Amino acid sequence: MIIVFAEGLSKDSVERVEIALRRAGGEPRRLASEGAAGRLALECKQTLSADARAAIATLPGVQFVLDGDAPYPKVASAAGAVKVGRTTLGNGELTLIAGPCAVESEEQLDASARAARDAGATILRGGAYKPRTSPYSFQGHGEPGLLMLRAVADRYGLAVVTEVLSPETVPLVAEHADMLQVGSRNMQNFALLRAVGRAARPVLLKRGMSATLDEWLLAAEYIADAGSDRVVLCERGVRSFDPAARNLLDLAAVPLLRERTTLPIVVDPSHGVGVRGAIPPMALAAVAAGADGIMLECHPDPGVAKSDGFQALLPAELAALAVRLRAVASALRSSAVGP
Amino acid sequence: MIIVFAEGLSKDSVERVEIALRRAGGEPRRLASEGAAGRLALECKQTLSADARAAIATLPGVQFVLDGDAPYPKVASAAGAVKVGRTTLGNGELTLIAGPCAVESEEQLDASARAARDAGATILRGGAYKPRTSPYSFQGHGEPGLLMLRAVADRYGLAVVTEVLSPETVPLVAEHADMLQVGSRNMQNFALLRAVGRAARPVLLKRGMSATLDEWLLAAEYIADAGSDRVVLCERGVRSFDPAARNLLDLAAVPLLRERTTLPIVVDPSHGVGVRGAIPPMALAAVAAGADGIMLECHPDPGVAKSDGFQALLPAELAALAVRLRAVASALRSSAVGP
Amino acid sequence: MIIVFAEGLSKDSVERVEIALRRAGGEPRRLASEGAAGRLALECKQTLSADARAAIATLPGVQFVLDGDAPYPKVASAAGAVKVGRTTLGNGELTLIAGPCAVESEEQLDASARAARDAGATILRGGAYKPRTSPYSFQGHGEPGLLMLRAVADRYGLAVVTEVLSPETVPLVAEHADMLQVGSRNMQNFALLRAVGRAARPVLLKRGMSATLDEWLLAAEYIADAGSDRVVLCERGVRSFDPAARNLLDLAAVPLLRERTTLPIVVDPSHGVGVRGAIPPMALAAVAAGADGIMLECHPDPGVAKSDGFQALLPAELAALAVRLRAVASALRSSAVGP
Amino acid sequence: MIIVFAEGLSKDSVERVEIALRRAGGEPRRLASEGAAGRLALECKQTLSADARAAIATLPGVQFVLDGDAPYPKVASAAGAVKVGRTTLGNGELTLIAGPCAVESEEQLDASARAARDAGATILRGGAYKPRTSPYSFQGHGEPGLLMLRAVADRYGLAVVTEVLSPETVPLVAEHADMLQVGSRNMQNFALLRAVGRAARPVLLKRGMSATLDEWLLAAEYIADAGSDRVVLCERGVRSFDPAARNLLDLAAVPLLRERTTLPIVVDPSHGVGVRGAIPPMALAAVAAGADGIMLECHPDPGVAKSDGFQALLPAELAALAVRLRAVASALRSSAVGP
Repeated sequence: MIIVFAEGLSKDSVERVEIALRRAGGEPRRLASEGAAGRLALECKQTLSADARAAIATLPGVQFVLDGDAPYPKVASAAGAVKVGRTTLGNGELTLIAGPCAVESEEQLDASARAARDAGATILRGGAYKPRTSPYSFQGHGEPGLLMLRAVADRYGLAVVTEVLSPETVPLVAEHADMLQVGSRNMQNFALLRAVGRAARPVLLKRGMSATLDEWLLAAEYIADAGSDRVVLCERGVRSFDPAARNLLDLAAVPLLRERTTLPIVVDPSHGVGVRGAIPPMALAAVAAGADGIMLECHPDPGVAKSDGFQALLPAELAALAVRLRAVASALRSSAVGP
Repeated sequence: MIIVFAEGLSKDSVERVEIALRRAGGEPRRLASEGAAGRLALECKQTLSADARAAIATLPGVQFVLDGDAPYPKVASAAGAVKVGRTTLGNGELTLIAGPCAVESEEQLDASARAARDAGATILRGGAYKPRTSPYSFQGHGEPGLLMLRAVADRYGLAVVTEVLSPETVPLVAEHADMLQVGSRNMQNFALLRAVGRAARPVLLKRGMSATLDEWLLAAEYIADAGSDRVVLCERGVRSFDPAARNLLDLAAVPLLRERTTLPIVVDPSHGVGVRGAIPPMALAAVAAGADGIMLECHPDPGVAKSDGFQALLPAELAALAVRLRAVASALRSSAVGP
Repeated sequence: MIIVFAEGLSKDSVERVEIALRRAGGEPRRLASEGAAGRLALECKQTLSADARAAIATLPGVQFVLDGDAPYPKVASAAGAVKVGRTTLGNGELTLIAGPCAVESEEQLDASARAARDAGATILRGGAYKPRTSPYSFQGHGEPGLLMLRAVADRYGLAVVTEVLSPETVPLVAEHADMLQVGSRNMQNFALLRAVGRAARPVLLKRGMSATLDEWLLAAEYIADAGSDRVVLCERGVRSFDPAARNLLDLAAVPLLRERTTLPIVVDPSHGVGVRGAIPPMALAAVAAGADGIMLECHPDPGVAKSDGFQALLPAELAALAVRLRAVASALRSSAVGP
Repeated sequence: MIIVFAEGLSKDSVERVEIALRRAGGEPRRLASEGAAGRLALECKQTLSADARAAIATLPGVQFVLDGDAPYPKVASAAGAVKVGRTTLGNGELTLIAGPCAVESEEQLDASARAARDAGATILRGGAYKPRTSPYSFQGHGEPGLLMLRAVADRYGLAVVTEVLSPETVPLVAEHADMLQVGSRNMQNFALLRAVGRAARPVLLKRGMSATLDEWLLAAEYIADAGSDRVVLCERGVRSFDPAARNLLDLAAVPLLRERTTLPIVVDPSHGVGVRGAIPPMALAAVAAGADGIMLECHPDPGVAKSDGFQALLPAELAALAVRLRAVASALRSSAVGP
């Protein structure tokens, strides 16, 4: 284990880390030069307990710790595949999650669910509680929306994933949904992460607006630490500088997460781009990048959608895209180099 | 009012907005060309109700609405100055908020509070509930920390500001604190925003990690809409690409917010830079940029701090900096051009 | 045409634009409200000359102009496909460009070119002039490197693309290369853009480190305006906040560019991610997103490469990846919904 | 010296670095664990030559090198103060650089120069060669603009700083100007950096649109390595996500650069914010942050400026601001804690 300190740190701080290391059974040795702009590092060859290691990594002045261990042990070694209803995310098959941005009416939801089912989706998405930037925008129908979701999903043999916005509503949402979604704005709402971790439901954890992969995995670790490692990570674009798209969809997150965790990975190109014409190509690209599932917004009549209509696909567009998504997935499988 | 649509929108979507405008009493007129890559816009000369205007701004396809009205009416026209204990933020005097990152012990808090008072601070900061990126980092002492904060602040005649992490704990925190802090990670935790808006306490709302000024003001509007316009905005740096600093402190936010709202503005250079040597210059710069208050971390012994010790000032450093902050504030006042 | 002004603009500025519009034959009409924070806009129904329109768009205070015309007319209406040697980029077939980051030696280049040819690449890449962040890093072999590139490419029947760093060296590079590359750091080196536009060679224009799509297309317009519209755009990742990858590969640029230009689009996942294991998935994703070509770094022995060895593929990896790239391209073609 | 490798590197790459270290006289020792996700590091206690150290830092797979030495030795140890005409930047006095964005006419330049001189500026800025995003925007008057700059500056006893866009024009610009400006778009135009480094003129090096401090200092190192360490760094804002401002002015760059270099630092709030009302507060903040100089755009009639008129101050505004800048500078000096 090598502990690397922030630049320009005083020797006092280093001494405190040395004391902590010795208390934990380590025998630290100073490694770096001590010049004006120098960095210091400590080497410790002894194996410390996980707790001691975590404690040392968060001591003041410690910039990072080099060793073979991830800071998110539960997430790094999770079981992998996550069952949602009759579908298993991460079992090698492509999972399709589709539905409207928000639950608006029985009629709209029924048409969306039928379109989802017809396209081969196995999970219905739809918001009953909507996090909106403005307090004056439509905030979702709440509990009646949940009931509609459950009824319509059952009608078409689909599982339900829907967003939960606060710890108090977790039990209610968990009663009606098969999977709880934590949205981007709440990725570091730690009270909510703990609450969904205690519920008996898998969790779809969307990446925060400007979260690094490590921050995202640590958010997943909160859920795992609260009791559930049935977490699915959902890439949905990060904030960037170009107004040409709503967000910058970071597809490289898919292979980079694969090197860090076994949790299934879903991509949401609808929010990730926010420009209708670019959604099908980015969905295809997400499959090619190795995603376990794709989440798409569809709506029978996007022009009247109460939120985000501009990024919803029509039923026929969804069906056509689903065929192509499976064609790419199949080409990838058949061209894969064994073993 | 001019309604500008997203590029490449279908005429159907425009027709729906025209219908909505007519329902609200407007008489829309189409304005833009309809070429391949063209944009459409609608002009409407009639004055609509605030509700109708807000509804139209969120219709699908509408990119923005040009008129003289802010999307955050309550925040744009708030009373301005906010009283916290015996101090008034935004009354023309520089307010100093100081204290440790986290409440660790009675002794540490007492020494920090004494340093704060001696430097001229009138509000004590300190975390009893700490939002931490890793579930394995120190999470704060909770309620005992609140009691310590209250007792120590009273001892030195200071008001208390402290962070609240979930709606359930708002009443408890409001019982002991004079001001509730909503942290960066929770800037769009709308359940929490509504809960603090209903509490009878002013709120310090930190800017989200990558929030635009408009998103930040709309988060403040949630609080105002829930009942309280006693909101103070706190700039604390945004996410950027250069690892040289913890965040990128956006001091231009101070004058740019002034053009949009009368709410008081505080700057937190400790989190905003996260490099000890750069904190005093950035605190001075924040005063020169026009901030109403400066929030600084101090600690009697930063080397043993349980969190963020590397960015805490020593009592003597805080006292020296406070003298300079007042010197700059005074130079600005005396060189201000009338009327 | 609607001219929208920056917020808070004085009426004087608006009057000047009105005068300019009238001089150009237009009859402007004021459109927006004039409230405190209001925006102004002018409507002009007359068709102006392209020159007059461009001049007005750059008048002070004008924020943008809404009409059916792109600010990059030559690039918006370019011929489309670009011939490089015997290959045509943008003709519906996937083009593979491969080779080492830098030309190091005859032996290394020969092995790389053979690997490129064997994988089905038709264009050899390799730097003779290397733009390096530090003046102390290897800067390329210069002219001898160009000669090697030409000789080796001819041996394997490949075309050559190589970077040019300054206007003076354009003629020399154009003598030996089939295509001139302008790198990210020089995307807005306007003297260089004009120089390559005057050379009788197609140009591969890499996206700048934090360039918007519009800035990138305007850089291409400089080249077109200097005489050549044989420009190929190359996405190679933009700067972002997460140290997990070297850059953030913006694959959505592919479909979003398609809506703005007919120029061929190439993706460079090697620089775009900079993490070896993530390069093949991102190359596959780029094909699925609709790229006309993929540019890959390969090296017979990445461990001794003088630059960027960590992101070069081995010959066998390149060959295996090429098979999969074609499998995805073929799946896309056969599942495409006709016309 | 500790050499830290990128994650997931093969042992082959490490062996090559070990060989290189041994060739340079070092005796490397492996330090880190070799687990699945482990990082490797090498420790080397011997002092290597500067050349050997630089070579090793750029070997494939090496992520960074921990030692007491900056990667920009010439810039880290530069003389500090830089004389421009009769002014010395970095001597403890505040330097004011002012003038129009572009040289438009003798009359406009004369009025701007008089305003600059009257406000206490000692250096006149103004562009004769303008780098513009669109090829159809005004590109500057070229050589006649240079002659005007020289004549007008001499009339008012000012030095001249003006931008140079290509290596060929460096001699011509150096003949008429006292200081050569390298703009943001050219910060990594290495041919230009070398050309200005060979000219007998100090250089104002603007920070690139999304350059890290290290990249910026390495760009300055190119100039120093070409022969001149009379470089002045100019912060002018970086690219960010909020459309509320043109750029995000990174004032923390001032104290963070101070820890890395003795080169003088200038701040340009005109480009840094691009919103007229926010420029004076940000200029004041830049002085408080410790800048050696402030560069401001002024124009006798901003409404008719050919470029960037919206961010130019009127002569009276410039004069009033200059008084306040000096008041803040003076307050800082008199409240400084000695020595």
